[in-house]
Amino acid sequence: MATPRPLPTTSLQLPDPLPLDSGQVLDGVTMAYETYGTLASDRRNAILVPHALTGDQHLASEHPITGKPGWWVRMVGPGKPIDTDRFFVICANVIGSCMGSSGPAALDSDGRPWAMRFPVITIRDMVRAQVALLDVLGIERLHAVVGGSMGGMQTLSLAANFPDRADRVLAIATTARHSAQNIAFHEVGRQAIMADPNWQAGDYYGTGAAPDKGLSVARMAAHITYLSEAGLTGKFGRRFQDRPDGTAGGRSFGFDADFQVESYLRHQGLAFTDRFDANSYLYITRAMDYFDLAEEHGGRLADAFAGTRARFCVVSFDTDWLYPTSESRSLVQALNAAAAPVSFVELSAPYGHDSFLLDVPALDRVVKGFLE
Amino acid sequence: MATPRPLPTTSLQLPDPLPLDSGQVLDGVTMAYETYGTLASDRRNAILVPHALTGDQHLASEHPITGKPGWWVRMVGPGKPIDTDRFFVICANVIGSCMGSSGPAALDSDGRPWAMRFPVITIRDMVRAQVALLDVLGIERLHAVVGGSMGGMQTLSLAANFPDRADRVLAIATTARHSAQNIAFHEVGRQAIMADPNWQAGDYYGTGAAPDKGLSVARMAAHITYLSEAGLTGKFGRRFQDRPDGTAGGRSFGFDADFQVESYLRHQGLAFTDRFDANSYLYITRAMDYFDLAEEHGGRLADAFAGTRARFCVVSFDTDWLYPTSESRSLVQALNAAAAPVSFVELSAPYGHDSFLLDVPALDRVVKGFLE
Repeated sequence: MATPRPLPTTSLQLPDPLPLDSGQVLDGVTMAYETYGTLASDRRNAILVPHALTGDQHLASEHPITGKPGWWVRMVGPGKPIDTDRFFVICANVIGSCMGSSGPAALDSDGRPWAMRFPVITIRDMVRAQVALLDVLGIERLHAVVGGSMGGMQTLSLAANFPDRADRVLAIATTARHSAQNIAFHEVGRQAIMADPNWQAGDYYGTGAAPDKGLSVARMAAHITYLSEAGLTGKFGRRFQDRPDGTAGGRSFGFDADFQVESYLRHQGLAFTDRFDANSYLYITRAMDYFDLAEEHGGRLADAFAGTRARFCVVSFDTDWLYPTSESRSLVQALNAAAAPVSFVELSAPYGHDSFLLDVPALDRVVKGFLE
Repeated sequence: MATPRPLPTTSLQLPDPLPLDSGQVLDGVTMAYETYGTLASDRRNAILVPHALTGDQHLASEHPITGKPGWWVRMVGPGKPIDTDRFFVICANVIGSCMGSSGPAALDSDGRPWAMRFPVITIRDMVRAQVALLDVLGIERLHAVVGGSMGGMQTLSLAANFPDRADRVLAIATTARHSAQNIAFHEVGRQAIMADPNWQAGDYYGTGAAPDKGLSVARMAAHITYLSEAGLTGKFGRRFQDRPDGTAGGRSFGFDADFQVESYLRHQGLAFTDRFDANSYLYITRAMDYFDLAEEHGGRLADAFAGTRARFCVVSFDTDWLYPTSESRSLVQALNAAAAPVSFVELSAPYGHDSFLLDVPALDRVVKGFLE
């Protein structure tokens, strides 16, 4: 994505400067967001759904670049587990991202893209911006905050740092801190991007050439971590691709994609570059790596939730090796230690980390039940 | 590694052309190898140790580029589990690699580097070349063949395709076929290399610029798969690096390596480019991805071992997620079905796949006992 395009989305400028964990202050923050359903007159039916690393505000509506349905359209809509006939659902593009909110691809006050002049942000900074958006929208208290993966980090961060803002907190396939292995995979992605000569220290906007090759490699590496080994085997195994002429494939004794899994990964990498900005990938992975909710609160995770009065629900998936169930258990123990009401469920699903986005009817039931 | 240097190693040219699985024939194959110990007069005390993806023939002697000790010096030497006071140990650089044997960095008969004109090879081709080397050395029957990781694949391939050449077969931390996830990680590495503009379709020799950035990213991604999540956490956790001035580190709110694990991975990637050729990385990963011993033998793994009279020992590590114990179990079941004598042990070690190279005394005992 060499040059960000104007996109059809709702956005507004936050009235106040946004203080950041780095000590910097971000002025004139733009928040791009979508809403679904109708805000009740008492303003008590709002649900905030923070998105994941490469997600965006198009939760339940067509993506303006890819034309694909919203990323959680199976979960959010009329009569669905997050029922837009009952709830007013808000999804905002996180700061640092590239779908309309302030980030490296957006223009600074001098009219030039921020690029690497954009301040390094944290998960808490993303949440601060969303809480400021809620203030503008006049929503004092959420019925619930619901998020998976990095959305789950934001969900937990909101509960910890703004304990009066949500009645229910639903954290799915997530963690209270990024592990060494998580950081390592992100660092591979960042190095792939920064190794691309088109990256040009981040100043590639308007050059007509973006570091798409590096971004594509970053996406490929990350994508493997989103799937389970068994899921990959079930979906692709060692099956060869058919040849272009339709005949059965096999070893080409070359470096084309012989295996279906190679072709799939290459496609995932390339398609990603159409809709995502490489600098945003750097900034958001950095924010995730910095995330350590215990460290933010004196080193004890339970203390992060000392002030909460919310009800919690924590969901993990048995095949998720990116944020395995053990991470969710630690979180639940901390919530127990903080005497917060919490329910916990490990769901069985074959898709690995991506299970939270896919067809797992048991998750639908958990979400629906928790929001009652 | 932009230009291969002449290296101090033993080498010879195979007398006969080498037929390859691709149907091509490789003439004038050079095999670079090292030997340790003395060949007995009856020539029955030889042990072949095929090396892993990024290994080489410097099994138990100093590496000529890095100056580091041999990669298995803890296992091979006088009085060690592979005892060079008793055994004559041979380790040959695999074809396709870059430490003196024929490969893309070596010169073709026209005096130019092969580069991508080098034929795509398989694990079986690597083994054919090593068996041809044994013929030259006058070794008809090995006391044992012993290998870990890709060395284990060669070990199994030798047992399957040359059943009269080894009395004992010891396969460590390996698999009889590369999984979809294994292929996926390799494909990320290959794409990282080929995305590097210095790669120039493989014709970078003598240009003074090699695709070191791409190769470094490939190595970083692969390196994560060699370690266990718990091992990474134990070794690095979320610890920050000290700053250059010696003060305690922390979040820099930038993109330098703040975490120790980032710095470690970057170093692993960079150091690798000093000693390894990017094209060799492409060729050898391809050979590994193509490896499927069952498919080679009509689709049933047991049939691969129908003609064997060797004794087998299979070793896996409980924290190896690259080639997990389940892969070894499938192999052992096939050997049982082929009525081959086999012992199997899963060892507990914290280091993940790399356990076979590291300080695991239980492995020493297994190796020593099996070679008696």
